Amino acid sequence: MGKAHSHAYRDVSFYFDTKAKPVLQAICGRNEEGVKEAAATMGWQSYETDWRKLIARDDIDLIDIVTPNNSHAEIAIAAAQAGKHVFCEKPLALTLEQSQRMLDAVEKNGVVHMINHNYRFAPAVQWAKKLIEEGRLGRIYHIRATYLQDWIMDPEFPLVWRLSKEVCGSGALGDLAAHSIDLARFLVGEFKEVSGIMETFIKERPIVEDSSGLSGKGSSEQKGPVEVDDASVFLARFENGAIGTFEATRFAGGNRNGNRFEINGEKGSIRWDMENMNNLDVYFHQDEDGLQGFRTINCTEEVHPYAGAYWPAAHIIGYEHTFTNLMVELMNGIDQGYSPLPNFVDGVRNQAILEAVQESAQTKQWVTLSDVFKRAEPSVKS
Amino acid sequence: MGKAHSHAYRDVSFYFDTKAKPVLQAICGRNEEGVKEAAATMGWQSYETDWRKLIARDDIDLIDIVTPNNSHAEIAIAAAQAGKHVFCEKPLALTLEQSQRMLDAVEKNGVVHMINHNYRFAPAVQWAKKLIEEGRLGRIYHIRATYLQDWIMDPEFPLVWRLSKEVCGSGALGDLAAHSIDLARFLVGEFKEVSGIMETFIKERPIVEDSSGLSGKGSSEQKGPVEVDDASVFLARFENGAIGTFEATRFAGGNRNGNRFEINGEKGSIRWDMENMNNLDVYFHQDEDGLQGFRTINCTEEVHPYAGAYWPAAHIIGYEHTFTNLMVELMNGIDQGYSPLPNFVDGVRNQAILEAVQESAQTKQWVTLSDVFKRAEPSVKS
Amino acid sequence: MGKAHSHAYRDVSFYFDTKAKPVLQAICGRNEEGVKEAAATMGWQSYETDWRKLIARDDIDLIDIVTPNNSHAEIAIAAAQAGKHVFCEKPLALTLEQSQRMLDAVEKNGVVHMINHNYRFAPAVQWAKKLIEEGRLGRIYHIRATYLQDWIMDPEFPLVWRLSKEVCGSGALGDLAAHSIDLARFLVGEFKEVSGIMETFIKERPIVEDSSGLSGKGSSEQKGPVEVDDASVFLARFENGAIGTFEATRFAGGNRNGNRFEINGEKGSIRWDMENMNNLDVYFHQDEDGLQGFRTINCTEEVHPYAGAYWPAAHIIGYEHTFTNLMVELMNGIDQGYSPLPNFVDGVRNQAILEAVQESAQTKQWVTLSDVFKRAEPSVKS
Amino acid sequence: MGKAHSHAYRDVSFYFDTKAKPVLQAICGRNEEGVKEAAATMGWQSYETDWRKLIARDDIDLIDIVTPNNSHAEIAIAAAQAGKHVFCEKPLALTLEQSQRMLDAVEKNGVVHMINHNYRFAPAVQWAKKLIEEGRLGRIYHIRATYLQDWIMDPEFPLVWRLSKEVCGSGALGDLAAHSIDLARFLVGEFKEVSGIMETFIKERPIVEDSSGLSGKGSSEQKGPVEVDDASVFLARFENGAIGTFEATRFAGGNRNGNRFEINGEKGSIRWDMENMNNLDVYFHQDEDGLQGFRTINCTEEVHPYAGAYWPAAHIIGYEHTFTNLMVELMNGIDQGYSPLPNFVDGVRNQAILEAVQESAQTKQWVTLSDVFKRAEPSVKS
Repeated sequence: MGKAHSHAYRDVSFYFDTKAKPVLQAICGRNEEGVKEAAATMGWQSYETDWRKLIARDDIDLIDIVTPNNSHAEIAIAAAQAGKHVFCEKPLALTLEQSQRMLDAVEKNGVVHMINHNYRFAPAVQWAKKLIEEGRLGRIYHIRATYLQDWIMDPEFPLVWRLSKEVCGSGALGDLAAHSIDLARFLVGEFKEVSGIMETFIKERPIVEDSSGLSGKGSSEQKGPVEVDDASVFLARFENGAIGTFEATRFAGGNRNGNRFEINGEKGSIRWDMENMNNLDVYFHQDEDGLQGFRTINCTEEVHPYAGAYWPAAHIIGYEHTFTNLMVELMNGIDQGYSPLPNFVDGVRNQAILEAVQESAQTKQWVTLSDVFKRAEPSVKS
Repeated sequence: MGKAHSHAYRDVSFYFDTKAKPVLQAICGRNEEGVKEAAATMGWQSYETDWRKLIARDDIDLIDIVTPNNSHAEIAIAAAQAGKHVFCEKPLALTLEQSQRMLDAVEKNGVVHMINHNYRFAPAVQWAKKLIEEGRLGRIYHIRATYLQDWIMDPEFPLVWRLSKEVCGSGALGDLAAHSIDLARFLVGEFKEVSGIMETFIKERPIVEDSSGLSGKGSSEQKGPVEVDDASVFLARFENGAIGTFEATRFAGGNRNGNRFEINGEKGSIRWDMENMNNLDVYFHQDEDGLQGFRTINCTEEVHPYAGAYWPAAHIIGYEHTFTNLMVELMNGIDQGYSPLPNFVDGVRNQAILEAVQESAQTKQWVTLSDVFKRAEPSVKS
Repeated sequence: MGKAHSHAYRDVSFYFDTKAKPVLQAICGRNEEGVKEAAATMGWQSYETDWRKLIARDDIDLIDIVTPNNSHAEIAIAAAQAGKHVFCEKPLALTLEQSQRMLDAVEKNGVVHMINHNYRFAPAVQWAKKLIEEGRLGRIYHIRATYLQDWIMDPEFPLVWRLSKEVCGSGALGDLAAHSIDLARFLVGEFKEVSGIMETFIKERPIVEDSSGLSGKGSSEQKGPVEVDDASVFLARFENGAIGTFEATRFAGGNRNGNRFEINGEKGSIRWDMENMNNLDVYFHQDEDGLQGFRTINCTEEVHPYAGAYWPAAHIIGYEHTFTNLMVELMNGIDQGYSPLPNFVDGVRNQAILEAVQESAQTKQWVTLSDVFKRAEPSVKS
Repeated sequence: MGKAHSHAYRDVSFYFDTKAKPVLQAICGRNEEGVKEAAATMGWQSYETDWRKLIARDDIDLIDIVTPNNSHAEIAIAAAQAGKHVFCEKPLALTLEQSQRMLDAVEKNGVVHMINHNYRFAPAVQWAKKLIEEGRLGRIYHIRATYLQDWIMDPEFPLVWRLSKEVCGSGALGDLAAHSIDLARFLVGEFKEVSGIMETFIKERPIVEDSSGLSGKGSSEQKGPVEVDDASVFLARFENGAIGTFEATRFAGGNRNGNRFEINGEKGSIRWDMENMNNLDVYFHQDEDGLQGFRTINCTEEVHPYAGAYWPAAHIIGYEHTFTNLMVELMNGIDQGYSPLPNFVDGVRNQAILEAVQESAQTKQWVTLSDVFKRAEPSVKS
């Protein structure tokens, strides 16, 4: 993730003329060799090996957190207290309570904050948002969202940190469903209640000495228990009456990065698939009789959000540009002193939904968001 | 449906050399004018206006039931008691108890029975079954099945019989999800438990004098309550550990007949879409590194089930051929004295799952199939 | 082909209420065993083994010619002289001169005539025609048409009759390109000139005793020369200024029946693919900025030509229905005494284009249709 | 184009660890205001307004030519004579003779040279090359290549420089077909002969004062003749016996950047589409019976050329990455002193094919490449 973020800081001013412009002042990592090399490769002007020192520096305005989930809260809160703006990876924290403390900190200290739900910034998704806001789909009835991957299907794939409950809080839920939840909140609205399943298909995996790597089979004879979900699926009701199905899994063979959704409204429907992220499929019920059908729009034209900054029509862009586009908003927020969406408020609400799904999976009950927030009080405000 | 069934009886011997061959002896309908014309158009040699008379005839061996759901049980039981084989539309009945009585009747009277889950008989679905049975997908992890339609999205669409709880028992659930459930039972295995939502988006619709027609806007000023579900979505756990998401709706604009599923197993995945019913998308994890991807197989070759009876490769077949193919099995069953799958046993199990979803939607609890069967005892055997 | 034609005669009155209705009076074949069995299977009431006897029968109104190409002319002319209507497979004949004699015969004898370019009768193609006629595409600039197959790629595939120049006249050209040419004439307009290549990739193939079968590898040690084209590709200019590329081949691996075209006009574009024959992809330049894209229309609704006679929307139809739909027109023609399109006039023009491509491939020159017709005079009228 | 090139120089060292690394030393443009701003935005350390001064600078090792086609030769030759390596936009020149002089210059002066056929460097295209080289497709029978755009379909679109014969030499041919020709040479082999059409659908367009802009309708009342082709289509025979169809057009509505090809060989087929540039569709005839079909490979895995340097699987890349990947090769060439493919030799051969198509379109004859080279002697070596 550090690579994707770094690239966005480098690239945003190449394509966009924001008033605030990022300077790649310092990168931080625990391993000095590694961070030194990363700084050189990616163009950072200096480096630190202790994040506290980074936060203490006067020449730093913005702290970008791409560490594992269990360190987000401590770093973000310290950064906010030091008066630094904060951009944080998703999910915001391990728990709702933790995320609320992060929100409190950034609000109390008046710093700009944002969470990295980068998929919002695909031009096709922004275009979808615009269509919905203009009422082109009318009342929303359905969303069906999947985030399908397959990178840990091999039972010999080792117990890497992404499979640690202590480090990540959850598996497919926090890693993948969090993105689908954000897209649903962005495009459909607030969740009301959820009912879900969390499943771990492979219960044990090889332990590796250095489980930092995400690739390679486990070499160890010893196995340890997998504590996080391989797959999380859930139903949802939204405040506005829409209903949704959500499925996040790392066990959907052949789906390398199947971040997809379809939304059906009374006047039309839209479909999106990250693997063809430039396209938005749109159906309008008002189209002439006999000429109704999903049309595939390549969202690479001047009229499409952010797209005009890049290349001629249908000279497509890729994954990294979702970060570049997001960076435009973060720079504008810093320049003008507001926290662009999605920010920590979104992070907290997202966390509440993740927590509701987890509770639902444990209790086999529907869980309403208002209850989750109520239980979390007084620390958490719904 | 009568048209599709009639066509299959006419056509099966054109393409297939079954030992038993259907004779279009008699058609039955309440309206004499209508049924007389239908007989002439479709090639039936005689007609009746009272189904009891039809059942009483000596020259009739097989009763095909395509009436609304609330009359299935009475006709099927009477037919069985008269020693006639029975082919019945889905869902088998309005309730699990009713469906079990139907099963009891056909079993007690030793007649051949079958239920019309025609989609099993698309060559691509049969091919999927074969791949799964051969272990090509390995252990199954996921099924995600949708049956998306959009024909009643207009609020002025009238209260036709398909929207009557009394006549149909349910809406999208029994009409559409019943098919997805059958495909899941066929391809994945038995359901263990479900948790679902049933939603009616348009609560009232115009009442029409003669609500038999399925098209045309309601002309009446008067409105009546819609008692059945516009959409039903549910999660499922299967006996073999697989998990599933199911969505049946009549409110997915742009999806005219989106009967689709994807199944992910440890060794591979398959995808099918009724709107491109000749194709099966297949992914094998064992494919060479760098050459892995879903391949689109046009299941129209000699090697594909039933396909050899039709046309050269990729000269595609359509919806009606699912009926023709099914008829091959029904004729073989009648010839050899067994009830081909899917039969009333499948109908009962399907009904139990529909009932479980309904109960789950009402109670907002997970419902296990074993409980449904337990409650239904002694009349129903799980 | 006999099977597809037979089925259409059987089925047309099931779906369509034409005034003239076909009666399956007699089928003809040289092998008595074979034709007897075919009659029984397909529902013909009698059979003949000599086509001259068939033509002599008083109870026969229409002669349907599905014999190899080299017998079309003789049979069609005899049938016309006997006052029978004639429906003939494509290509009409082996040469332009032959086809013109056929046209002369049917015209002189005042019988109804039609040629079997069945793909015109896919509802999606008819819908395309309507859009073009209504000016929805505006002036046509381009057509690119392919007909890609792969059934003879194996060098051991034997020298069957379809690879005989004497019997068929040509290979991919007359078999496949003839269809693309017909679709182009139907949708774009008349050809002006062509420049082409005809290529035989596999120059020799095993000779088989009975080369009637289209499947199975050659068992013979002996090989004979392949005299027809494995592939024909050509450029065309149309009278209206459009330009086209055409490619017909039996050597496009993975394309089992890739009969496809795209047409671009000043206001829009359309795409069709026989392997997904229910769909028509349509692009309108006038669509709103940012919402332009090809839309996929499933041409299975009431509004789409012929589609209303079949099933509910998106319950797709297949290859055989192109014949059923064509039959509606043939029956109407017979009833009202006109020769529906495409008829022998189209057959002659198609033959002229085939001949022009052949000449062009031999001379490596552009060949204009007017020259072809001029040379063929006085027998042929352009 | 300057933007795309600039970005590649900036980005290559971020992703790839080449020994030679580009330094953005100086950018050149005629308009000082414009070039100054461009330098600032894109990160160039200095600028020039006269390309001769740029070439004269000691701190410049590589000259990158993105000027209009009619200035390529002069600049490239001067750069080579000054001992600078040269990277030139395609097409190499206006004429074959010009391109040969450029090749002579770079060879005589021993500088590294390369031409910007960036589409070769899509990972999917590189993967296609590897499959072909390994013999996975066997003998090649067919290529069908299209490059379809639609940006000048509006008759009011003005006479911009890209529509000037003096500046560009040709229209769709040199701009679009040149890319398809390069891909065909890369993947299939050398061209033997061609027969083509060049067509200008809109004969006159509004003249604009400053016709540098590529967008906006013409405001002028005055019209001037369009001297270049709106569309060029041609047939080709290759040295190895394959045949090809090529179509380049700016009049294919709905196709914004339809750079596509399909190649059929005796053992398999491949398909690629720039608008989904990460995907390669592959068909293998050796796949098991009943399981044959095109598989869609998302070429974003470690094993795919260049892909490992970017993101996790199926986190797709875009158009600009074709430039970044090419830059890896250019840097390696500069480091090790060779001219990577495609270089000026490819540029000359490409130019010869363009010239052959032009001649063919004028004379309406097939033109063989050996004749083109023969006529161009002694200056040009075939």
